[in-house]
Amino acid sequence: MTNQHTTYDVTKFHGSVPASQDIGIVINEIIADIKAHQTSQTVKPGGDIYIPVGDYDLLTQVVIDISYLTIRGEGHGFMSLSIRDNTPDTSGWRETVAGGSHVKVKLTGAPAIVTNRNGTQPRLSSIEFRDFCMDGLHFSGNGNSYVNNKTGIYVEGDCDSFVIRGMGFVYLEHALVLEGADATTIDGNFIAECGNCVELLLASQSCKVTNNLIGGGYNGKSIAAAGAEGLLVAANNVFPRGGSLIELINSARCSVSANRLAGFYPGMIRLIGTNETLVAANLVRRQNETYGPFQNYNNGLQETYGIFRVQGDNNKISNNHFLVDPQGYTAADGPIIVINAESGIYNWISDNHYVLAAIPNLQYVAVRLGSALTQSKVIYSGSSAQITDLGTLNAIVPNP
Amino acid sequence: MTNQHTTYDVTKFHGSVPASQDIGIVINEIIADIKAHQTSQTVKPGGDIYIPVGDYDLLTQVVIDISYLTIRGEGHGFMSLSIRDNTPDTSGWRETVAGGSHVKVKLTGAPAIVTNRNGTQPRLSSIEFRDFCMDGLHFSGNGNSYVNNKTGIYVEGDCDSFVIRGMGFVYLEHALVLEGADATTIDGNFIAECGNCVELLLASQSCKVTNNLIGGGYNGKSIAAAGAEGLLVAANNVFPRGGSLIELINSARCSVSANRLAGFYPGMIRLIGTNETLVAANLVRRQNETYGPFQNYNNGLQETYGIFRVQGDNNKISNNHFLVDPQGYTAADGPIIVINAESGIYNWISDNHYVLAAIPNLQYVAVRLGSALTQSKVIYSGSSAQITDLGTLNAIVPNP
Amino acid sequence: MTNQHTTYDVTKFHGSVPASQDIGIVINEIIADIKAHQTSQTVKPGGDIYIPVGDYDLLTQVVIDISYLTIRGEGHGFMSLSIRDNTPDTSGWRETVAGGSHVKVKLTGAPAIVTNRNGTQPRLSSIEFRDFCMDGLHFSGNGNSYVNNKTGIYVEGDCDSFVIRGMGFVYLEHALVLEGADATTIDGNFIAECGNCVELLLASQSCKVTNNLIGGGYNGKSIAAAGAEGLLVAANNVFPRGGSLIELINSARCSVSANRLAGFYPGMIRLIGTNETLVAANLVRRQNETYGPFQNYNNGLQETYGIFRVQGDNNKISNNHFLVDPQGYTAADGPIIVINAESGIYNWISDNHYVLAAIPNLQYVAVRLGSALTQSKVIYSGSSAQITDLGTLNAIVPNP
Repeated sequence: MTNQHTTYDVTKFHGSVPASQDIGIVINEIIADIKAHQTSQTVKPGGDIYIPVGDYDLLTQVVIDISYLTIRGEGHGFMSLSIRDNTPDTSGWRETVAGGSHVKVKLTGAPAIVTNRNGTQPRLSSIEFRDFCMDGLHFSGNGNSYVNNKTGIYVEGDCDSFVIRGMGFVYLEHALVLEGADATTIDGNFIAECGNCVELLLASQSCKVTNNLIGGGYNGKSIAAAGAEGLLVAANNVFPRGGSLIELINSARCSVSANRLAGFYPGMIRLIGTNETLVAANLVRRQNETYGPFQNYNNGLQETYGIFRVQGDNNKISNNHFLVDPQGYTAADGPIIVINAESGIYNWISDNHYVLAAIPNLQYVAVRLGSALTQSKVIYSGSSAQITDLGTLNAIVPNP
Repeated sequence: MTNQHTTYDVTKFHGSVPASQDIGIVINEIIADIKAHQTSQTVKPGGDIYIPVGDYDLLTQVVIDISYLTIRGEGHGFMSLSIRDNTPDTSGWRETVAGGSHVKVKLTGAPAIVTNRNGTQPRLSSIEFRDFCMDGLHFSGNGNSYVNNKTGIYVEGDCDSFVIRGMGFVYLEHALVLEGADATTIDGNFIAECGNCVELLLASQSCKVTNNLIGGGYNGKSIAAAGAEGLLVAANNVFPRGGSLIELINSARCSVSANRLAGFYPGMIRLIGTNETLVAANLVRRQNETYGPFQNYNNGLQETYGIFRVQGDNNKISNNHFLVDPQGYTAADGPIIVINAESGIYNWISDNHYVLAAIPNLQYVAVRLGSALTQSKVIYSGSSAQITDLGTLNAIVPNP
Repeated sequence: MTNQHTTYDVTKFHGSVPASQDIGIVINEIIADIKAHQTSQTVKPGGDIYIPVGDYDLLTQVVIDISYLTIRGEGHGFMSLSIRDNTPDTSGWRETVAGGSHVKVKLTGAPAIVTNRNGTQPRLSSIEFRDFCMDGLHFSGNGNSYVNNKTGIYVEGDCDSFVIRGMGFVYLEHALVLEGADATTIDGNFIAECGNCVELLLASQSCKVTNNLIGGGYNGKSIAAAGAEGLLVAANNVFPRGGSLIELINSARCSVSANRLAGFYPGMIRLIGTNETLVAANLVRRQNETYGPFQNYNNGLQETYGIFRVQGDNNKISNNHFLVDPQGYTAADGPIIVINAESGIYNWISDNHYVLAAIPNLQYVAVRLGSALTQSKVIYSGSSAQITDLGTLNAIVPNP
């Protein structure tokens, strides 16, 4: 038993293979070494694994079952692989791959990194991932599929006080998935050109997704949570595409504030079975796809779904700015519904503003209150003509 | 005199004791070494002290009297000691202590780390604390007292441009206290299971408490300031318990925005003698204590105090979402007052929404305007029945 | 060609000069070394340059033309050089210069650090600057000019996914200038006592300026963008002086939310030729200059300009708190206009509140709608007496 005071540099650890050949094996061997040296219940400070700037293949899944493990690099290393894959000739380019502390995820069918205590107690705590790049390298087909059966980090089982900060994720079908996260910080990351970016599953609580740059695939989720309680999503810049940008399913008491959200399809924001949630002071930009190679793709939803879909109770949707400019649309595509409060009770929709591009014959509905919506308020969130109320006992204060 | 270019690793510095035995002595000796080498008024770059992942006792107070000192580790190392202390048998647990770059604060009666220029000029500037754990180890009694006479970091006297980032604090009666802080950054920290978490005393100005996960004791303060000017509290996820969550005393022109706040008692947010302050776009969740071992404790305030208490002038309280679900309450406990604007002039309360759980016989007041409140506005922040106006010259626009 | 796994410590690299003598030469030689070792198009992970705490002269411009380069220190090292320069006798001070990882910018007439791909493809990606200090040392004249023809970092040409985090900038005429930035993160920096702090030029998109402490000169810009699309400015504490604090020129769909802004002159916030932008949940504090040595300086604008100036369409200005206390003013200086919506169409101004200090004979206009402003709304943002409408087809809901 030792009071470990060592940083493990993956390039200097005497593992069974060089880290460049399979960093997965090396990290697993480092974890085994940490565990061999920290056998007392009261002396388990964990470890610090350092990935210098460089290229590292990952062929073997990293399995983390100890708390207080930090894995860190010195560069998030993103580059746009999508622009690369849609450029006919890159032979003259200086580089054609991502970089930084660059983990090349070659493992398919299972997450590159998994954390799991395997049923022992207590929960894993304070694992930190910082400042390195997880790169899925290629998507299947022409590179525009967002599909490659690769996942960056998967947190299985409950966890506490994890930190994911300053990371880069690119070309992964799933970048970051956490089950049962308690008080997790996902801050300052660059997660783009991934199918799905941030997925909080099962019963997360008091988590924080802040200050990230995020852009998911047309067939994926940018920031999604299911069964979340008290999630804070603030100060993110979420850009296209994103099949959904903010998707909260069966969640409660979450807050989505001060974000800039830009997307291409209906269903940008979804509160489905989600209650008591605040969506405030966000800028929401809806265009149609602007990049030629992706103009044949979308998320399959109809305009009737709504750019912002609500099915739930007691939500507050206030002080948002909706900018809708679906160039290329025609009357056949419309009307476009901005906020579609499909069902629920006691929702509060106030002080939202809309910029709706004038397109010949295209109609808009600013707020639609569905027939299963009741006892909700719409205050200064559209003119009378822009609001459709099919529900019961709702109250509307139209724009002056 | 030397142009110092050294990182001091506390485990490699040849101090009079090993860092694991008393990191306080070692850091003080390092500081003395830095000072011995930096004697010119114009060559004082400061120093960089590195705490590798490991366990370190702190028996001796660290005294910092030089600017530009960074003390950093590689892991915030929090674990829930409270769950440990309330679990009857932890003999099967993998670990029972916190970790990371783990400073075990064994010093009582005085702060573990103090910064103080002792009257010389200029103010201390740009001291940084990053990515290590300060752990008070135990609370007195059964572990649920939040009392142990231990303080993590105490900044005495004026300071400028300090940074506290990525730190973990656990089981300290006071985690972080700053006097006279100018332009301090408190960002991305994990401060939980501490009696008091962030305390800004005396005349702080232009400080920033952002992006933190914070949870104080039932008898303590989560984020508190006295005499603050221009404090920004944004994008924090503040969870229970917290005797108070946001407490601004005799402060002015502060901003509390885009936070998620969850607590168990009246007095969650307090503006006392505080003026011209903005509280906007926050989610405020009030329950009763949910965890058995703490259900006998509270902060001693009556419901008449208000969940959000205002005594001051010219404050703006807008676009907040209040979720109140005090299970177990009865009519005898109520009515519950959400916003209690007790006294002051020209307060502006607009576009706040409430979710008030239906509990038999329990009454709520959404907004109470006290008899000493005057010339204030309440706009779309409650129905007529939910608002009590005992003051003078106030104007109310009730919910439609 | 090598799969580089090295951190370059500028004090240990065998360059042609010591880093303390000219860190510019040393970094350029390191970059040349990286390039010499990374010649394959598919093995270009970049590099990691470490600046230990210490003092370093910079005489030679650093030219970065490779992606994935991190330059980092361990301390942002700010001190107030302005207080120093306005203190008659500093002979008793402990130190009189900034510190940390302290780059002393002695180069004038050209940026200290420039990034430029020089026309080759792809764009530079993922260059990171973290945790060091760029110090311009002196301003011309008595130190209060904000002029010295020095620039910290200048990004020429398009770039992608850059990160500037934890940096300190002081006494630079221009701290940080980026052209054509895509998805850049400017987070957690301390940028003060610089003429101009953050300037985003040309066609930036999806950038993020968050969580910074920023204070520009009376003749400069604190946070400025021209031609920006989708910029997010959130959770910053921007303090005086700042000729302008938030200046968006010919930009669109930006979001300015949850900031605290304090300044001394008209023109604190400017949307000029800027459309579809959200300014929400900010605290805006206007005083007159409070510090004697600067009371003869200002930004040259008349009060008729407005504290918040709007020339553009479809902007939303909501839920802000304006605190105006221009001590020393007289009727001759007034009236003071808070929001001056000079021209444009479809602007939405809602739920703003004002604290206007009572000064003998001084008049205020809370909202002025200019003669070229049309079809805009003003809702609960001033009493009838506080609003001047010179435009056409605007609608006003005055305070109750």
